[in-house]
Amino acid sequence: MIELKTYFSKELPGINRFLESETAKLDGLVQQVAAHVLLGGGKRIRPILTMATARALGCAETNLLPMACALEMLHTATLLHDDVLDGAELRRGTRAAHLKFGVNETILSGDVLLALANQLGASYGKARISWLLAEGIMATATGEVMEIATLGTPEVDRQTYLDIIIGKTAKLIETACCCGAVLATDDPAAEDAAGAFGLNLGIAFQLVDDALDYVSRTENTGKAVGGDLREGKVTLPLILLLEQMDGSEAASLLAKLRESTLTDQEINSILATVDEKGYAAATRQEAADYILKAKTALAFFPDGLEKNVLEQAADFVLAREK
Amino acid sequence: MIELKTYFSKELPGINRFLESETAKLDGLVQQVAAHVLLGGGKRIRPILTMATARALGCAETNLLPMACALEMLHTATLLHDDVLDGAELRRGTRAAHLKFGVNETILSGDVLLALANQLGASYGKARISWLLAEGIMATATGEVMEIATLGTPEVDRQTYLDIIIGKTAKLIETACCCGAVLATDDPAAEDAAGAFGLNLGIAFQLVDDALDYVSRTENTGKAVGGDLREGKVTLPLILLLEQMDGSEAASLLAKLRESTLTDQEINSILATVDEKGYAAATRQEAADYILKAKTALAFFPDGLEKNVLEQAADFVLAREK
Repeated sequence: MIELKTYFSKELPGINRFLESETAKLDGLVQQVAAHVLLGGGKRIRPILTMATARALGCAETNLLPMACALEMLHTATLLHDDVLDGAELRRGTRAAHLKFGVNETILSGDVLLALANQLGASYGKARISWLLAEGIMATATGEVMEIATLGTPEVDRQTYLDIIIGKTAKLIETACCCGAVLATDDPAAEDAAGAFGLNLGIAFQLVDDALDYVSRTENTGKAVGGDLREGKVTLPLILLLEQMDGSEAASLLAKLRESTLTDQEINSILATVDEKGYAAATRQEAADYILKAKTALAFFPDGLEKNVLEQAADFVLAREK
Repeated sequence: MIELKTYFSKELPGINRFLESETAKLDGLVQQVAAHVLLGGGKRIRPILTMATARALGCAETNLLPMACALEMLHTATLLHDDVLDGAELRRGTRAAHLKFGVNETILSGDVLLALANQLGASYGKARISWLLAEGIMATATGEVMEIATLGTPEVDRQTYLDIIIGKTAKLIETACCCGAVLATDDPAAEDAAGAFGLNLGIAFQLVDDALDYVSRTENTGKAVGGDLREGKVTLPLILLLEQMDGSEAASLLAKLRESTLTDQEINSILATVDEKGYAAATRQEAADYILKAKTALAFFPDGLEKNVLEQAADFVLAREK
């Protein structure tokens, strides 16, 4: 993955500088909240995807930073709202914004970041970009509502789970790639290929995230192990476990999830079973199928450095341990 | 105001039908939240302003509903987030969405409406529209953060108050008029004139709102009288009162506002004094100055039905009793 690593090393300083300078322009308290979450870390996968996709498709526009960073801002805005919803205590290994700055300030700062991202996108003079950004935000928020709604339902099947992760994660990564494509060309086939790459990569990304939630330590991901289970979120490792249980056992577990009445002992027992049966590994295997689809979509792209970078990004998403 | 009334009567059914059909396309729970607040009433001032401005400036585009309704959606999205922040119990005379559907669902539904509005705006293929919508949202959220921040400060002077109401109210009305102008013409002078009309109209609108908060009954506005005072919001009628108090008296009142320790008796006494001294009327007089500025900006507009409608809208904003 040498080209991917070199690409990240080369682009990250510019991305971070741009995010810093945009954050510095924001008003008082909003600036503090934005700086806390936007400059406090993050893999910057979305902006790198936007830049690499644009260049892979022969983009003539040299100033890609506003577009790329718009995607990071959208992502960050959804994190701000998401953490308020989850009542999360940690984000990127540090204290969640709503605990530090207040719920109201965090919601509104999320709104400001959403708007700033839209404005950066609009600055290219292509309405299609604004349309895509809106589509991405809508899908993300709708996916999160769907996830919340399922917290109270008796069962989440694989299809519902897939719909949720497409909405809450994959669509915005699709958007990141589509925006890069639109900057490069008006060819709808290019946008379609970029979108297919991003969507499948995004599904794989969330599958790996959900696998890691069952195996990772806090020092790796900044989140506690088994966090999804504790929050009552039904993700693929748990679905695989539920599919192996008999009906009444599964119903009892789901009821406890719904009512948040799982004891620490029960949680540890579930974590141990998922580990023992290899359901986290099976989830990662599922991710591998989507990575294959993502790479297939890249066939449309001309050979070159950026195509290699995107292929390696797909490998990285699958292999990551945090 | 016969032309304004006729214009509203003619356009409102189309606006409401469009909002209904867009709401119907949304996903499950988001649809319910959106329908509750978007279809539950509202004056539809912003969409009417967008349509009238576009036509006044000779707009050739015949399908103005998506643009006009985008402004209503943006406004509604800010109401959803705002009510969560305020912990408001009533909105448009009915139960606030967050109490009926949950805080999380309401925040995310607000995000979906923001995005849907952006998408409708982007559908005209003019990036300037997306830029303006983003600017409007950013200003609105920033104004609200500023308002929250001042709840804890010892004093709000007239300038701070003006900055807050420009942000939280006037900028989005400016946006409504600017978007109409951009649909009609690429002439920046037209956009400037439309923006100046909208901004001053919006300032007046909020001044009247803040005056009404001190005099209106619940049956008129759907809000309890003295609501701002109870929430610790310092608006112009109270600023006028504070300016007449001696230093220690004002400091004591501000401290009680900050700490939410005003008794019902003290609140009633303040309401009575504001009434007796005519500070609500003085606030409305201040609004009259901005209405004059708004009308002056209309000098740029060619004479015709829509210019009359906009002038009458300015009169209506100033005269309204609910």
